[in-house]
Amino acid sequence: MENPSFQKATDLLKEKLPDSVMTGPDELAPYAYDGSKLAFTVDALIRPQKESEIGQVLELANEHKVPVTVRGGGSSLTGSASPFSGGWVLDLSSWEGISVNRAAGMATVQAGAKIADIQKAAEAEGWFYPPDPSSHRYSTIGGNLACNAGGMRGGKYGVTRDYVLALRGFLPTGEAVRWARPLRKYAAGYNFRDLWVGSEGTLGVIVEATLRLVPKPKARWTILACFESEAKALDQVKLLWEQQVIPSITEFLDRESVSCAERATGAEIFAGQKGRPVLLIELDGHPAAVEEDRQQVLAILGKSSLAWKEAADENEAQSLWEVRRKCSGAMFELGDAKLNEDVVVPLERERELIEFTRALSQEKSLPIAVFGHAGDGNFHVNIMFYRDHPEQSANAEEAVQSLMEKVLQLGGTISGEHGIGLAKTPFFAMEHSPAEIKAMEAVKKALDPQGILNPGKLFTPYEVWRHRPVKVRLPWDHK
Amino acid sequence: MENPSFQKATDLLKEKLPDSVMTGPDELAPYAYDGSKLAFTVDALIRPQKESEIGQVLELANEHKVPVTVRGGGSSLTGSASPFSGGWVLDLSSWEGISVNRAAGMATVQAGAKIADIQKAAEAEGWFYPPDPSSHRYSTIGGNLACNAGGMRGGKYGVTRDYVLALRGFLPTGEAVRWARPLRKYAAGYNFRDLWVGSEGTLGVIVEATLRLVPKPKARWTILACFESEAKALDQVKLLWEQQVIPSITEFLDRESVSCAERATGAEIFAGQKGRPVLLIELDGHPAAVEEDRQQVLAILGKSSLAWKEAADENEAQSLWEVRRKCSGAMFELGDAKLNEDVVVPLERERELIEFTRALSQEKSLPIAVFGHAGDGNFHVNIMFYRDHPEQSANAEEAVQSLMEKVLQLGGTISGEHGIGLAKTPFFAMEHSPAEIKAMEAVKKALDPQGILNPGKLFTPYEVWRHRPVKVRLPWDHK
Repeated sequence: MENPSFQKATDLLKEKLPDSVMTGPDELAPYAYDGSKLAFTVDALIRPQKESEIGQVLELANEHKVPVTVRGGGSSLTGSASPFSGGWVLDLSSWEGISVNRAAGMATVQAGAKIADIQKAAEAEGWFYPPDPSSHRYSTIGGNLACNAGGMRGGKYGVTRDYVLALRGFLPTGEAVRWARPLRKYAAGYNFRDLWVGSEGTLGVIVEATLRLVPKPKARWTILACFESEAKALDQVKLLWEQQVIPSITEFLDRESVSCAERATGAEIFAGQKGRPVLLIELDGHPAAVEEDRQQVLAILGKSSLAWKEAADENEAQSLWEVRRKCSGAMFELGDAKLNEDVVVPLERERELIEFTRALSQEKSLPIAVFGHAGDGNFHVNIMFYRDHPEQSANAEEAVQSLMEKVLQLGGTISGEHGIGLAKTPFFAMEHSPAEIKAMEAVKKALDPQGILNPGKLFTPYEVWRHRPVKVRLPWDHK
Repeated sequence: MENPSFQKATDLLKEKLPDSVMTGPDELAPYAYDGSKLAFTVDALIRPQKESEIGQVLELANEHKVPVTVRGGGSSLTGSASPFSGGWVLDLSSWEGISVNRAAGMATVQAGAKIADIQKAAEAEGWFYPPDPSSHRYSTIGGNLACNAGGMRGGKYGVTRDYVLALRGFLPTGEAVRWARPLRKYAAGYNFRDLWVGSEGTLGVIVEATLRLVPKPKARWTILACFESEAKALDQVKLLWEQQVIPSITEFLDRESVSCAERATGAEIFAGQKGRPVLLIELDGHPAAVEEDRQQVLAILGKSSLAWKEAADENEAQSLWEVRRKCSGAMFELGDAKLNEDVVVPLERERELIEFTRALSQEKSLPIAVFGHAGDGNFHVNIMFYRDHPEQSANAEEAVQSLMEKVLQLGGTISGEHGIGLAKTPFFAMEHSPAEIKAMEAVKKALDPQGILNPGKLFTPYEVWRHRPVKVRLPWDHK
């Protein structure tokens, strides 16, 4: 994807910001791809030394129509941080500042601050930042805002968007802007703050966010239980909600995921219950409230589960978590390629979704492992296949299409926390009507008339499964 | 503001939707103004019988460039529901459907559903809808979404925006759209849901919302305390937050507001403490958590307040609330005109704001009564004056200008919950940079190319204090 006009613009860029721009092939190589491992051309890597340089970069990019892809940790699974159209990669990962306002219960963080570091900084001041994507040790708040990341606590605590009070950054055309303020109420003009959240780096460059924190829960309790069937497990989640027991975490693993975890650990999770689906439930809050809810959870699981283990302390809780941690890695024994779809369905339709994926697995002769956040209906459906096996590849493609149709038919969405990026583009028009897409494209055009920010994402179908990923091991890859 | 082309379009509209369109002067009269009492011309009132009629109305409006102002309860204080540019008023107040999904903790409501009715419906199913604007008995969810209404519980529970999962409605150009879904996670495309919230009916017509509910708190506790000074009272609010005691309500009344309440009730709130500023604090949650926090509140107030009263039961709590309820009405003994500004400042700057309003009152020789939601920094600054008194009028205008400058200097915002409408338009460019306003206007233009939805709001300065309101008594007017 050589483009001579990018070369000229890149030369100008280097002249203007000699200390912030890199163009050596070795320097560029790791920025050719993100967590999706789909590689594209990079013409320059920009690590701005000062905030104002971002405005300069964008102005030059507009003048010369050079694509700019903003990047934090680069852990996106959908390709939303990959330089799809070439051009420049704007790396904000070294902008890691975190400042907690203890009295106000807020944290002001730079775009490159890692989620785990924000969580730690908040907890050090007695506060709690609930969003907890599994990438929290690698992913940055900029990226989490870009794709409206969620994680395990969505049912009780919501998602990244629910914790954003104010943003600072740059319009695609290079002007510095602020959206809302570090305040708990704001009603002064269009809500561009929340328009930026989830726009995957296509409508502006976020440089700083002020996040709302909540008091750190004083107590936690964890239990792991296994069930005769997926349906039985998910029915209990519904029952908990009906009784207003809202766990901070309700992780579900179907039989395939459990089998993966058991292979990885070499032991049965519950003796004599090999491959049975499980729920991992965590309660948090005031000790008295946790204790009351614990009684209700035990009453419900007592009637419905085949076996359960309560964690007596933090160490035991950690060992219960091993199951969840181990399941993803072992999936690669089932295929060398994975389509990981972060779909969401309404709480009352979860059972139907899992029954569908079981049948789909049979029909397409492909292993499909499903795990995820049953408290908010957000499941990771992992379709495994061997890329060089033509029939499996074709079946995987059909399976993901059928899955998306089913999810939408159940009243769900094609993405709960990963965003669209490149990976979900083929399904975007299944979820949104032509009028909706037209409106989104009109807003994109209004704010980014030259189309320089992250072009090719969201709107143009790109079939990721037809493209071969680079062979590289990333820090967050499962062993 | 007679406009012959509106007449022609209105005739066509009546032909198309004879049963939904009214043009009789008596029918139109009450729709010429909203809670701001600034009256304008109305060419037609539309009460759609079917949802699809809204699309038809908008198509026709686009074709003939007729302004359309959407209206719920009409209780806006900023003029955001007033038909400023004439044309058609689209009244959705009879679309009042409310349906609570008990298992999922969600309510799907039509745009005209009143907040008090939504609260009641939620509570009947054991759930809680926290946003609680003082207009809750009159204002509709459509209006609350349009201006991102807040109310007293913002500090702990956030605002309307924080409870919206999905919206259905129409683009300005008439196409039916859905933004997000009734799900707790959503990351599939631009977040037009939250762009609509707070856009004051200028970017689309909301017909239905799905709201997130939270478990109904099991316990509540209320206390009223008076302090030597405003500064002393507000310092305690900061102290509570520092100790992570987050009341569900922290209402503050300055000495002027207290004096108004005392005049209205004819009694001192605390014997011998006439005109002392007060805090009204409510805790809610699990009984054990409320009790722990209660001990902390009592310890803090024990050291800092001159006197306090705890409510033993719901009746006593209601009588403590009388103070807050009575203060607004009695303000009209201080002037026949009120500039009620819903500014917000950071928690740590509240004291400075109130010190400023005390000094401003002196400087301008005008009564300024301040009360509001100290838990989220959102204060109602009421500048009272006699409209026919030229010096007072001039001083009031200067005072509101100075107030806005101060608020912005403190890191605050010109509106926390009322929105911009007409009333805040003169200050809009003080809060937002030219680049920010250009971006907002570009989005408006992209989505509403003919500019038919609620034209004249937000962006064009209009000095409300120079215009004489209609003499009318509205249901929510204080006695």
